[in-house]
Amino acid sequence: MEDGLHEGASLRVVVQRIRRARLMLSEEKDGWAEVDRGLVYLVCFVRTTAGTPPLDLRRAAKSLLMAKIDTNAEGRPASVLDMGGDVLVVPQASLSGKLKGNTPQYHAQVAKEKGLDLYTAFITILNEEAVAAGKVITIKAGVYGNRQALSTESDGPYTHMFEF
Amino acid sequence: MEDGLHEGASLRVVVQRIRRARLMLSEEKDGWAEVDRGLVYLVCFVRTTAGTPPLDLRRAAKSLLMAKIDTNAEGRPASVLDMGGDVLVVPQASLSGKLKGNTPQYHAQVAKEKGLDLYTAFITILNEEAVAAGKVITIKAGVYGNRQALSTESDGPYTHMFEF
Repeated sequence: MEDGLHEGASLRVVVQRIRRARLMLSEEKDGWAEVDRGLVYLVCFVRTTAGTPPLDLRRAAKSLLMAKIDTNAEGRPASVLDMGGDVLVVPQASLSGKLKGNTPQYHAQVAKEKGLDLYTAFITILNEEAVAAGKVITIKAGVYGNRQALSTESDGPYTHMFEF
Repeated sequence: MEDGLHEGASLRVVVQRIRRARLMLSEEKDGWAEVDRGLVYLVCFVRTTAGTPPLDLRRAAKSLLMAKIDTNAEGRPASVLDMGGDVLVVPQASLSGKLKGNTPQYHAQVAKEKGLDLYTAFITILNEEAVAAGKVITIKAGVYGNRQALSTESDGPYTHMFEF
């Protein structure tokens, strides 16, 4: 792991519960990542102020996978690890936006190379944690820095915001 | 306007830029609100601490309609008021969620009746502001408190978070 990778960054995530979703990976025919029932994580790495503890990507990954934001067949709170299902992780730079007058500024985003490294590490850790939990979770990733065409179908109150 | 309606609440919004979206309003056939190019506002009214200024719904509505989170044909930042288009306003109680251990708690949401009154007032004000700006903006609302089945198609980095 690159020295200092986890310093000076936090992870902002909007989680949406979905029935299915598809994300364009390339503009070629069939260049899509498709997932069925599960979650979409819209993720952005933002700069933190001096003195903020380093980003704990493993804690963030565990917390997101274990968050009981779904309901099981008995109507009780359940996580994606409890239920199984797919997770689609979409880079979403715009989540760093802050309005200055009417124009959003994106200065809060970490530098592109650092963001790519953190995104790649996050995907790896999500996969490790799903395997460690012994669960059939398919983690699919987007392409960091690309245009993100995304279609989602959801059901129920389903949008959650987290920051780690 | 009900006395105290704007006290003790803030508005949390996740904005998604979309090519089209559809929201289920009732489970009957064709009970859907459909919009084309524009924005989805996922909205939640959350309790504030004592001493927080009252929620200024009109300022929030203006700010959201004027936020330059789209790009025009010349590639310059543009708002939904600049571009025209549709706005679909979806009640999203889950945005008030805060993890306690692995279980989200939704205590931060305002009481249901107050939330419904604020939601209704917000839709009215969005319409008034679109008319006042002399723009062709179609504001479509969901059903407060209902199950929200929603399909969206989007393109580009597009998810923004705001709090008013």
